[in-house]
Amino acid sequence: MSKKEITVQDVDALLQKSWKAFREYRKFPLKKRAEFMRAIAVEIDALGDDLIKTAMEETALPDARLRGEKGRTIFQLNSYADTCERGQWLEARIDTADPNRAPLPKPDLRKMLVPLGPVVVYGASNFPFAFSTAGGDTAAAFAAGCPVVIKAHSAHARTSALVATAIWKAAEKTGMPDGIFGHVETNSREIGKALIQHTYTKAVGFTGSLTGGVALWEWANQRKEPIPVFSEMGSINPVFLMPDKLKQSATDVAKMYATSITQSVGQFCTNPGLLIGIEGDDLNSFLKTLAEEVRKVSPGTMLHPGIAKSYVENRATALAQADVETVAVSDTAAAENQGTPTVASASGQAFLNNPVLHKEVFGPYSIVIRCKDLAEMKEVISHLEGQLTCTLMASDKDIAENNDLIELVKDICGRFIINGVPTGVEVCLSMHHGGPFPATTDSRFTSVGADGIKRFARPVSFQNWPNEFLPDELKEGNPLGIWRTVNNELTKS
Amino acid sequence: MSKKEITVQDVDALLQKSWKAFREYRKFPLKKRAEFMRAIAVEIDALGDDLIKTAMEETALPDARLRGEKGRTIFQLNSYADTCERGQWLEARIDTADPNRAPLPKPDLRKMLVPLGPVVVYGASNFPFAFSTAGGDTAAAFAAGCPVVIKAHSAHARTSALVATAIWKAAEKTGMPDGIFGHVETNSREIGKALIQHTYTKAVGFTGSLTGGVALWEWANQRKEPIPVFSEMGSINPVFLMPDKLKQSATDVAKMYATSITQSVGQFCTNPGLLIGIEGDDLNSFLKTLAEEVRKVSPGTMLHPGIAKSYVENRATALAQADVETVAVSDTAAAENQGTPTVASASGQAFLNNPVLHKEVFGPYSIVIRCKDLAEMKEVISHLEGQLTCTLMASDKDIAENNDLIELVKDICGRFIINGVPTGVEVCLSMHHGGPFPATTDSRFTSVGADGIKRFARPVSFQNWPNEFLPDELKEGNPLGIWRTVNNELTKS
Repeated sequence: MSKKEITVQDVDALLQKSWKAFREYRKFPLKKRAEFMRAIAVEIDALGDDLIKTAMEETALPDARLRGEKGRTIFQLNSYADTCERGQWLEARIDTADPNRAPLPKPDLRKMLVPLGPVVVYGASNFPFAFSTAGGDTAAAFAAGCPVVIKAHSAHARTSALVATAIWKAAEKTGMPDGIFGHVETNSREIGKALIQHTYTKAVGFTGSLTGGVALWEWANQRKEPIPVFSEMGSINPVFLMPDKLKQSATDVAKMYATSITQSVGQFCTNPGLLIGIEGDDLNSFLKTLAEEVRKVSPGTMLHPGIAKSYVENRATALAQADVETVAVSDTAAAENQGTPTVASASGQAFLNNPVLHKEVFGPYSIVIRCKDLAEMKEVISHLEGQLTCTLMASDKDIAENNDLIELVKDICGRFIINGVPTGVEVCLSMHHGGPFPATTDSRFTSVGADGIKRFARPVSFQNWPNEFLPDELKEGNPLGIWRTVNNELTKS
Repeated sequence: MSKKEITVQDVDALLQKSWKAFREYRKFPLKKRAEFMRAIAVEIDALGDDLIKTAMEETALPDARLRGEKGRTIFQLNSYADTCERGQWLEARIDTADPNRAPLPKPDLRKMLVPLGPVVVYGASNFPFAFSTAGGDTAAAFAAGCPVVIKAHSAHARTSALVATAIWKAAEKTGMPDGIFGHVETNSREIGKALIQHTYTKAVGFTGSLTGGVALWEWANQRKEPIPVFSEMGSINPVFLMPDKLKQSATDVAKMYATSITQSVGQFCTNPGLLIGIEGDDLNSFLKTLAEEVRKVSPGTMLHPGIAKSYVENRATALAQADVETVAVSDTAAAENQGTPTVASASGQAFLNNPVLHKEVFGPYSIVIRCKDLAEMKEVISHLEGQLTCTLMASDKDIAENNDLIELVKDICGRFIINGVPTGVEVCLSMHHGGPFPATTDSRFTSVGADGIKRFARPVSFQNWPNEFLPDELKEGNPLGIWRTVNNELTKS
């Protein structure tokens, strides 16, 4: 479906195929799902330099970054395959029968997660591999037992098509049903809506803008049957610069953040766009070093001309707000489609009065808020919306003395970092990449790490089933050797 | 807020108090939450005969049933308290740091579930204790660390008010913050909407009708910030009567189902409203016994006059459909507000042609569908909507020979029973009381059993936190002795 524009009828045919594949794929043992995922990793690796070259042309991301991201994508596929096979995510629970219970006998009950059905995934502009065609959402859906239909990101459609061929090859080699994976290239809103509203679409994964993520959620809300929409829509990722910490190491913290703010031309959803401190010499010295460091950073080419244009506009709007001071701009002039590293500053009061300053400026831009005291910093926190991450730069003294401030921060974030930077999202079970709205549409689920598999599954209880007909995961004797909760005790036996 | 009509301003004041309570309550250790829940159980027990008497007056449910349900409510509170304390539900995951990892050091990351915030619960008409004021939703929310605001069911408002006093007493005795529990009596849609749409409402639990449950979901969709709505809206709970099983024991199966259909005047959300078999002598003999048994069952007083009126209307509508035959009606005439046990029958084709027959008739009513063969039975299944339960009455031979039919059934249900009845919902970890829409608005969560706690929680990752400031659940050395996944291995150490 790559060249000619696809129709609503094509979408229907695609989802029909996907549903048919679902009814086969979900019966496959965990081992076979894992095999498929590992085969995709192999096929992506086999795309070699072609893939890197294509992605470089489409996204302007540098070679090293793309090779790193490709490695991450392969790691994700393999690591979610391992998790899939380990089976702990199935939440197998068994309560055995008690025929002698009074007044009524207790039946045998066994529960596990089963896949939801076809998942529609919208790829991200800023991660052409790791959050796109064979990225985290796709890997999680395959692990859960769901077929995937990708809406390719138009900014890297050729890269997406290449990755799609790798998935189809892997599917063929490992005997997957036809329809296990579909690939849609379109810029039509009508087609996007048809994908979300099709009866056989059972969940949606999305990484991108607030506007885009909310639109998908609203389309889903128009359905007769509600389906979960997992939109990860980025955030401004506030960093709280606590007084004792700044007294000890304002310069080091400033250097660390100059790097984090400008890394990858600021195009991470965990980019720290808001730094909040308390007025005084230490914050001034932090600002001075941050400004010096940011001026040294050259502008970089952004992912695509649309993003570069938005950056120029949003940055101009932010800098033009009342009481906003421009603290530092890169010493190097920006070429076409480049983003200029920029730091601004405003008082706590100016921030509280102006919601424009609470919005993400996607790119290498950060604003430093100078609060007059801790009370104002807390007021600022209580006015912030939901965030993927919040970071506290704090000494042990700062932490011990600011329990109430820390509690306020907990209300609004999905990941809470102390003395680090929010950029850099580990792929592991303990990662939560999510957060209260508007960071995501569902704060209860992560889009990074193997717990993301649970987005695409629901429990089914099997009551009074003869052992031989139960799924292997729930059979007596635990033939798969997975962790299960039997009569309220976790066990492998 | 019991006597005078409450206002939108009162709702705001209530949720403000609830939010304040949330910020205290969530900091309490699991042990203290459990203590509160156990104290509620004690206070409910202490209400003694007063509670039973009041509920009998309001619901017309018999003494024994209400005493049983009170016991179940107390059991739920104690059992979810145990689960809360055991801490397995927190899904604690730890990945330890690796400072030597190349190219970048790996940070220490620890994740656990934290409570969402205030939960609004709509009590059910058919379970004045177990699914109402101090019922499963409330117990699950308290276990998760969330305050609760109850919208009392107007059909048993005095019962609800009594239970509320028990909760407040327990709260006082165990030192809970003011605002941990709120109680709203109203019939106003505006107030209902204000409860769902308040900024501080973070989740909704509901048990009741499709219309009611969908209305709450739609109100929630109008919010700026999406919140999860867990509406359990009942279902028709199809039962598939397989040929070999009927050949062996048509009479026994019929007797079993005559009881299940008419139990508690058919007022269970798991009441089997649809029995599907294949035309022939065995199905005829099943129908004959079922009719004989149902005729013997006397009508019973329904929960309230509104439900009795709906039953009369819906039953009349169902019986008046083309090609629907009335098979059995209770030999005893119904008094005012009573529901008459009734069995109807129709062909597979009539069922396929008429969506009215797919709808639940809440009360002691069931329709038997006579399919012409297994193929038609499968067609019927593929036309059914989502269900809380599906049941297969089947011999091992039936099961072995009908894998494709079983797969179709799996698509549409939350609990899948073999050779039993769907009525009777065990309170245990392996119970899934939920199912695809329209059984619920979110098939991924249960409203019975301790896994229901997870409806009201979200994960937070703590990155690079000094050990002393981490929550106890995530500290080195596992001071609470809970199950945690450490570097991908489940362990208590």
